[in-house]
Amino acid sequence: MTLSWTVHELHLRHTFRISRSASDVARVVILRLEHDGIVGYGEASPTRRYGETPETVTAFLASLDLSRYESPMMLEDILAAVEAAAPGNTSAKCAVDLALHDWMGKKLGVPLYALWGLTPERAPLSSFTIAIDSTEVVRKKVEEAAEFPILKVKLGGDNDEEMISTIRSMTDKTLYVDANEGWKDRETALARVRWLKDKNIGFIEQPMPAAQLDDLRWLRERSEIPLIADESVVRLDAIPSLAGAFDGINIKLMKCTGLREAMRMIAVARALKMKVMMGCMIETAVGISAGAQLAPLLDYADLDGNVLITDDPFDGVRNTAGRLTLTPRPGHGAVPR
Amino acid sequence: MTLSWTVHELHLRHTFRISRSASDVARVVILRLEHDGIVGYGEASPTRRYGETPETVTAFLASLDLSRYESPMMLEDILAAVEAAAPGNTSAKCAVDLALHDWMGKKLGVPLYALWGLTPERAPLSSFTIAIDSTEVVRKKVEEAAEFPILKVKLGGDNDEEMISTIRSMTDKTLYVDANEGWKDRETALARVRWLKDKNIGFIEQPMPAAQLDDLRWLRERSEIPLIADESVVRLDAIPSLAGAFDGINIKLMKCTGLREAMRMIAVARALKMKVMMGCMIETAVGISAGAQLAPLLDYADLDGNVLITDDPFDGVRNTAGRLTLTPRPGHGAVPR
Repeated sequence: MTLSWTVHELHLRHTFRISRSASDVARVVILRLEHDGIVGYGEASPTRRYGETPETVTAFLASLDLSRYESPMMLEDILAAVEAAAPGNTSAKCAVDLALHDWMGKKLGVPLYALWGLTPERAPLSSFTIAIDSTEVVRKKVEEAAEFPILKVKLGGDNDEEMISTIRSMTDKTLYVDANEGWKDRETALARVRWLKDKNIGFIEQPMPAAQLDDLRWLRERSEIPLIADESVVRLDAIPSLAGAFDGINIKLMKCTGLREAMRMIAVARALKMKVMMGCMIETAVGISAGAQLAPLLDYADLDGNVLITDDPFDGVRNTAGRLTLTPRPGHGAVPR
Repeated sequence: MTLSWTVHELHLRHTFRISRSASDVARVVILRLEHDGIVGYGEASPTRRYGETPETVTAFLASLDLSRYESPMMLEDILAAVEAAAPGNTSAKCAVDLALHDWMGKKLGVPLYALWGLTPERAPLSSFTIAIDSTEVVRKKVEEAAEFPILKVKLGGDNDEEMISTIRSMTDKTLYVDANEGWKDRETALARVRWLKDKNIGFIEQPMPAAQLDDLRWLRERSEIPLIADESVVRLDAIPSLAGAFDGINIKLMKCTGLREAMRMIAVARALKMKVMMGCMIETAVGISAGAQLAPLLDYADLDGNVLITDDPFDGVRNTAGRLTLTPRPGHGAVPR
């Protein structure tokens, strides 16, 4: 089993601004796992917030010795060793998880959704993300996104009402709101939630900082719009404490170490009667196609990471007006262009 | 996709007595699912406690129309329809789940453990069950079980101390205790738990009736021996409420509708920091081999259902002195003798 990797610079169609940061490029690491003549592809899209950069990812991958495993099929053991190799490094661990799953699907000759007994037509529509920007740019982006039936709007800046009013002057389609922890106190958060009521908002993601769990519980008791945890839920172990503070969770492969933990997170959320959403970072078709394999188990999908870039080096799941079409190719189905 | 079934009468080596009942034979239903030239086998071992008999199982199976599904690979959709067909009927639903999984493994040419990325050598040793009986019979059974390194002892009758003392006069091997709800008030339960302390007891299963959850919480605060839920945990939805009252759960395929839900139960238990055991009913090698495929994810296994019978119509997983050896055959690996 040999691993090799390359760092790719992805270029965004528009500067991407959320409540914390802005960027024009994203650097990701593509992992290539080869064994027995079959190549599996993985991806890490590292985030500084979680202490990762392309350099930490490649250093983590270089530290791994998987030579003692006979086959990538030994997923559970290999991923336990990868987990134990170092704390954190979740996107690097995700790259290994995705490459192993891709290899396994290719070895068995089936897409991952088939391996898991899922019917791809059950996937919910994916939303298209509109970042924080000036009225002019927001207008332009909403126009560009005309074919997408659901928009996800980044709020939590200082022009929330302007953002929503601009969009609502153009369309009445369903909006998902992502505040990215931008509302810092509960009264502000409640005022925004009340203002958003009756504006066809599907849910609000992470209205307040993850550290303010009591405030989030307080807010949820008063909110008529479902609240979805994002920054509050990095991995599986966080979920039980969130029941009562949120109506659902947003799973991101790059934060939760990949598909294996994501499937377990879905089971846990369901047991706690919570909704399940899957989001993404800026990713190539590798990460997005992998996440999309699980889409039939989701309530909400926000898997537009590769629609936001101009130079995806991979071809995989198609996103046509928000409809995710999985390829019949084995594994996650993303292949180099 | 065609289903057919037969009722089998299994004969027990010894009359099997627990705190509620006694039996010499067990009747199970073997399901045969055929599609595309491949046959998958499932099994239902119905229990009256949960409202099932071989007659209700066959009636449930006869009520199903799976003709609208193209392939048994559409596991998630098919099992959702089976679930919705009627409440309860968990062992009948399990038969379908096992047959679908067996079919899928055969179609892809791999054992289920491989499909799930598991390493079979990780399986814990299985215990061997000693039912409630006279000192003489218990003595004989302990002798017969000499090769098994772990015994599971049924208590909750009126001769608990005699049972344990008899066994302890013969061996100091690890004992799992299963009270089957037999201790009806918390003071009795605590007295038994204290008496069992320092007697090399691995855990105590279901010390008190499932309905007495507050008493169970009270008992757990005072017990130095781990408490495992059995009658308290029929299916996935029960697990979150049990954290705090038990240290772990016992999963039985016949109660939880099969492998798919069992995997989700394991994920939920892990998220709640609970131990996971898998138990069984009196079953052929079909049910036992299917459960054993998940054994690498377990802390404790009590998969001796087919060791207790004299006329298993199937050949599958081997139980040698408690060591479960999975066959390399595809699916769950149990085939008609």
